[in-house]
Amino acid sequence: MRIERGVQRLVGALELDCGRQLLNPRIAYEAYGSPNPDASNAVLVCHGLTTTQHAAGLSPVDAGRAGWWDTAIGPGKAIDTSRYWVVCSNVLGGFGGSTGPGTPEPTTGRPYGMRFPLVTVADMVRAQRRLADTLGIARFRAVVGGCLGGFQVLEWLRQAPARVGAAVVISAGPWVSAHTIALWRVLSEAIRMDPAWRDGDYYGHAPPSAGMRLATRVGALFWMTRGEMERRFARRRVSGPGLSYGFDRDFEVEAFLGRVGTGAAERIDANSFLYLMRAMSYFDLGREAGLDRVFKDVDCPVLLVSYASDWRYPPEETALLARPLRAAGSTVWHHVLDSPFGHGAFVYDFKGLGPLLRVFIEDGAPATAASLSAGGSASSSRG
Amino acid sequence: MRIERGVQRLVGALELDCGRQLLNPRIAYEAYGSPNPDASNAVLVCHGLTTTQHAAGLSPVDAGRAGWWDTAIGPGKAIDTSRYWVVCSNVLGGFGGSTGPGTPEPTTGRPYGMRFPLVTVADMVRAQRRLADTLGIARFRAVVGGCLGGFQVLEWLRQAPARVGAAVVISAGPWVSAHTIALWRVLSEAIRMDPAWRDGDYYGHAPPSAGMRLATRVGALFWMTRGEMERRFARRRVSGPGLSYGFDRDFEVEAFLGRVGTGAAERIDANSFLYLMRAMSYFDLGREAGLDRVFKDVDCPVLLVSYASDWRYPPEETALLARPLRAAGSTVWHHVLDSPFGHGAFVYDFKGLGPLLRVFIEDGAPATAASLSAGGSASSSRG
Repeated sequence: MRIERGVQRLVGALELDCGRQLLNPRIAYEAYGSPNPDASNAVLVCHGLTTTQHAAGLSPVDAGRAGWWDTAIGPGKAIDTSRYWVVCSNVLGGFGGSTGPGTPEPTTGRPYGMRFPLVTVADMVRAQRRLADTLGIARFRAVVGGCLGGFQVLEWLRQAPARVGAAVVISAGPWVSAHTIALWRVLSEAIRMDPAWRDGDYYGHAPPSAGMRLATRVGALFWMTRGEMERRFARRRVSGPGLSYGFDRDFEVEAFLGRVGTGAAERIDANSFLYLMRAMSYFDLGREAGLDRVFKDVDCPVLLVSYASDWRYPPEETALLARPLRAAGSTVWHHVLDSPFGHGAFVYDFKGLGPLLRVFIEDGAPATAASLSAGGSASSSRG
Repeated sequence: MRIERGVQRLVGALELDCGRQLLNPRIAYEAYGSPNPDASNAVLVCHGLTTTQHAAGLSPVDAGRAGWWDTAIGPGKAIDTSRYWVVCSNVLGGFGGSTGPGTPEPTTGRPYGMRFPLVTVADMVRAQRRLADTLGIARFRAVVGGCLGGFQVLEWLRQAPARVGAAVVISAGPWVSAHTIALWRVLSEAIRMDPAWRDGDYYGHAPPSAGMRLATRVGALFWMTRGEMERRFARRRVSGPGLSYGFDRDFEVEAFLGRVGTGAAERIDANSFLYLMRAMSYFDLGREAGLDRVFKDVDCPVLLVSYASDWRYPPEETALLARPLRAAGSTVWHHVLDSPFGHGAFVYDFKGLGPLLRVFIEDGAPATAASLSAGGSASSSRG
């Protein structure tokens, strides 16, 4: 598989929702496979909160670490790089090399830290559109994403529907719930409580790893379902048959949590994580106008995918997208898949999603007519 | 209502599960109403993780703050203090005045801090039994509790079934799940990350309030259901129609979280909270023997109460208690109530529980035969 890793400088000012602007921001990206002459085989994959543009293959940076969606992207895989040119760009404000809080501020030459302007999902997509221009992509064969990536797909449909050949929205809804706003608030507080955070000015010092570890461990209590945690760990002990009668790790689930946090703290820039969570809390597609108006120019096929066990973005919230999209003339499929992995299922339990994705990107329709309820109906189907 | 507030010193050594012992430990308690001549009208109420013996009435300490179960306990209320003598004791290790990590260590005269021995739920009940002895209570009319309090009720049934006239176990199960162990781990880490925690030796200094606030805010994400948070707050903003495009509180749910944490940090001693969480993680009634053997001498009526929305202690886990109790000869009712308050329902949404509790304590059977499935059947009923 051909892998291209690049950084594009977007020439000129990028106007942001907050009223500020970024001059010549940089967007880092990876691309897998090769473009055809008019780049009409380009597929945009939008990444989530805790990941970057490194979606597939092995990264020279991460010492052999595979991309976050390596199960999905590659030759012969669901998003087949022998046929499609798959582009994944690091979001504006992200921690993969795009302009963000770790970037030097032009006026001082020192990293922005918390002086970086707040970016929204709409701003991220504005930057992606400019990146697509520089890469010569007029229209994507498909735009695909889950969670924060799903919000980006929805923003593409709002901002530039003519550039989207087909859209796949996974584990996302038209806005973020009160509970998720609350969760982001709590994770943010965990990071900010770490003295090493230094009000965001930790660059050049040790990063706030303890805060990041804690934040990702709180997150882990939500990504993995209660049932899956019970199935994997129950009350099994690491300490053998006896209990320590102390505060060390006695239980396997405690050892698991320790591992979860450590990896994330190494990979994720804490400030960037704060900005991305805030962008998600701000995401509300129906805020300014109703969803009918937001989607009025969409006519491409749309595949909505939810997981029954995902209580972050439950199927009934994803389902809210179907009616206004259909009203606009789009053909919409909503698949509700089963997985014990909850919100993490589209990454960690890909097998149910793979066939759907493969056929939808190829045909603009999901796998088998029998298991579907196609456009016009408001019902959702279980795949 | 007559209120008695006291502290009893339990003369002699209290042997603990961890192998250590406490000499002459103190147990703080409150009692409401009056005992009859043989104290056979005594009802023991066992408190939960974030509360103390101050269960009813107004506390002189808390400047007018009502007891945590003031809705349930009082003259004419479900646990009627005009008829019953209601005793609530602060658990061993608790933060209401019982011997715990804030108590001076005999050898040094300085607070134990994290040198306090680990106490288990079984240890707490051993101390309560000694308290009952000193108060002249041979047998309780009923022993009642939810969450950590429910575990104490189960321990009473295991240790001293002959002293329990009737048992009410609310929002609890025979052991703590992997997910709850993980949650306690994460909350503990939040406290320990606060530099003010000083490895537990913060007495005489400012307490680790930031860590306690964060811990209770993470907890709030679990006590309140996602649906209830959505109903109460949705995406309503405190900042008026515009967004701040910053990290201040824009949303009502963020302001709510701020209030949650502040009160708890003032009330709850952080070390004590660490010990009580650990006691819960260690709770596993079936560990040493099967539940059949644990409950073999129980013959009093037992009322089990779950809430359908409580994913901390879901109805199916509570239901595991019914069969072995029935096998022992006990009559068991299991009511599954509806409430949007999840695990907090037995405190914050008492209306469904009140009538059940009133009649069960009076008659040793719940309210109406029609809405019940009584002993012998393994099914649970919805009230």
